[in-house]
Amino acid sequence: MERIDQAALTTLATKALMSFGLKEEDAALTAQILVLGDMFGLHTHGVSRVQSYGERLEIGGINPNPNIKVQRLASALCRVEGDNGIGPLVGQRSLQQAMQIAEESGVAVVLANGSNHFGPVAPYCHIAAQSGFASFICSNASLTIAPWGGKQTRLGNSPMAICVPNPEGDPFLLDMALSVAARAKIRQALKKGESIPEGWATDREGRPTTDPKAALDGFLLAIGGHKGYGLALAIDLLAGLLSNASYLTHVKSWSDEPDQPSGLGHFFLLIDTKRLGTPQWLAQKMKDFAQILHDTPAADPANPVLVPGEIELSRYHQACAQGVAVDPLVLAYLNERVQKCN
Amino acid sequence: MERIDQAALTTLATKALMSFGLKEEDAALTAQILVLGDMFGLHTHGVSRVQSYGERLEIGGINPNPNIKVQRLASALCRVEGDNGIGPLVGQRSLQQAMQIAEESGVAVVLANGSNHFGPVAPYCHIAAQSGFASFICSNASLTIAPWGGKQTRLGNSPMAICVPNPEGDPFLLDMALSVAARAKIRQALKKGESIPEGWATDREGRPTTDPKAALDGFLLAIGGHKGYGLALAIDLLAGLLSNASYLTHVKSWSDEPDQPSGLGHFFLLIDTKRLGTPQWLAQKMKDFAQILHDTPAADPANPVLVPGEIELSRYHQACAQGVAVDPLVLAYLNERVQKCN
Repeated sequence: MERIDQAALTTLATKALMSFGLKEEDAALTAQILVLGDMFGLHTHGVSRVQSYGERLEIGGINPNPNIKVQRLASALCRVEGDNGIGPLVGQRSLQQAMQIAEESGVAVVLANGSNHFGPVAPYCHIAAQSGFASFICSNASLTIAPWGGKQTRLGNSPMAICVPNPEGDPFLLDMALSVAARAKIRQALKKGESIPEGWATDREGRPTTDPKAALDGFLLAIGGHKGYGLALAIDLLAGLLSNASYLTHVKSWSDEPDQPSGLGHFFLLIDTKRLGTPQWLAQKMKDFAQILHDTPAADPANPVLVPGEIELSRYHQACAQGVAVDPLVLAYLNERVQKCN
Repeated sequence: MERIDQAALTTLATKALMSFGLKEEDAALTAQILVLGDMFGLHTHGVSRVQSYGERLEIGGINPNPNIKVQRLASALCRVEGDNGIGPLVGQRSLQQAMQIAEESGVAVVLANGSNHFGPVAPYCHIAAQSGFASFICSNASLTIAPWGGKQTRLGNSPMAICVPNPEGDPFLLDMALSVAARAKIRQALKKGESIPEGWATDREGRPTTDPKAALDGFLLAIGGHKGYGLALAIDLLAGLLSNASYLTHVKSWSDEPDQPSGLGHFFLLIDTKRLGTPQWLAQKMKDFAQILHDTPAADPANPVLVPGEIELSRYHQACAQGVAVDPLVLAYLNERVQKCN
């Protein structure tokens, strides 16, 4: 991995995105999310996505110049119509609305439709947390999971994140999908020629498999059986159905129909913690909360108990201080795109 | 099981609760939640709870006449201080606030503190759904789960529910806790002298166990390892910390300190679906959503794919038509309480 300054990487990713026809402002908002993804160490959802997003932009699967519409449905409720824009742009516009509304009303729910894969969820939460907003943010996704008891993929491995800010330290930041393991991890195993652990996925007939190729043709297993299935459906309802986006089998496949709008939707809930108490009150509580967890006797003394987000946030601080770690091949791709269009 | 009319059971449970010093109105609101629990078939969280709640009321662990305070923090944000009232009463008052606020603002977040075990979550969601509100409702709970990688219980098996109404049919209703299995199920196994499946719980040293007694002394395992741990923490933050209730190890144990306020908190998010589209729009979408799931080829043809809540709602309809199924011993207890105080 190579380390590159956050601002320099953001400029590079912005320009690379502009090479696919995005306006500078839109490209910069998109790049901000992807760069934060890399800073958190979520490289499968970082600037490496410029290439896959770019491929869809080139064949018309994503609209490079969307006319994003904001519809205020009630004082604390808003719908954003993404016009098939690039996902992180629709996500950022939705987040901006949510922050403005939550500042006014204490709470905001923003439902976005007409969107695409919106990158990692943690960055949205992190941006919200820096202004004092607690958040629950999720998106639906293309089909990878079978319903509990079924043997056909009918729902996505919806990602979700819950974050509570800490005015004097790092926020609590839980960013997860509802499968036992991420599809990106299976793709990585395939790339490296490795097998995957049992329990991650099944083949297309619903039979357990350790072959990453068969797993990518089959479907992921959700955590906790019917519970993870239920949670994935709940996210699809909030982010997909209620937002008037596509849901379940109506979502178009990224790989099978890359030239079609995927029709994804997102859900943003923001709560203004500044209305709940002073920053000192919240900071003291968050410190105590983390302390109780850290003080837990560990099953393995070499692996102390962690608070969700700690690993990602320590990588983030390292990236702030030393630059963002990025795969040199990804950097080379971005530079190529920029040079091609200069 | 004996079947008894919903209204008759509600009156009986109300009077039994009044025998512990509750006002009629407060007892009736409490009884409504518990009776709905029985109607959904959640008997461990139904009117059987009158006895355990009553025991705590008698020794001063719960305040029979709380002065519940409602504090509007912003137009869509509200805090309810439960004054150590009986849980379902604090829950109902919070829900009433949330419905009123969501009707005005499209969205409501109500954070409740100073509460106790508030019964099953599904009834709150069901009441909200009947007025067109989608909901995400959760509570923290007394300690039963160890942090991921830890060997001491430091968090509760927080229950949560997500519900989306269907104006022309049954809502989507996911009601679950984050452990692989509920503590109540382990208590049932102990009562019946049965062992429990591996993977449900560990003993107090963190060792896997199939002995229900050892499991009740130990701790429950969360779904998906670190993911379920993270979700349980997120619920504790929303329902406990942000509400200014107790959280993690600050929550008092029901069994060890029954005379102390447990200090629990709840979280209510309501979204007014009537602001999103017509009832016909939502009904058509919800019908389609369920249809897609029902049409999934089943791994075992004898067990078709279900939508979360279907089992509970079919029991509910049966209870409406034929009366609520209740354990005769529970009915006898309730009748005894009423006679004692007449």
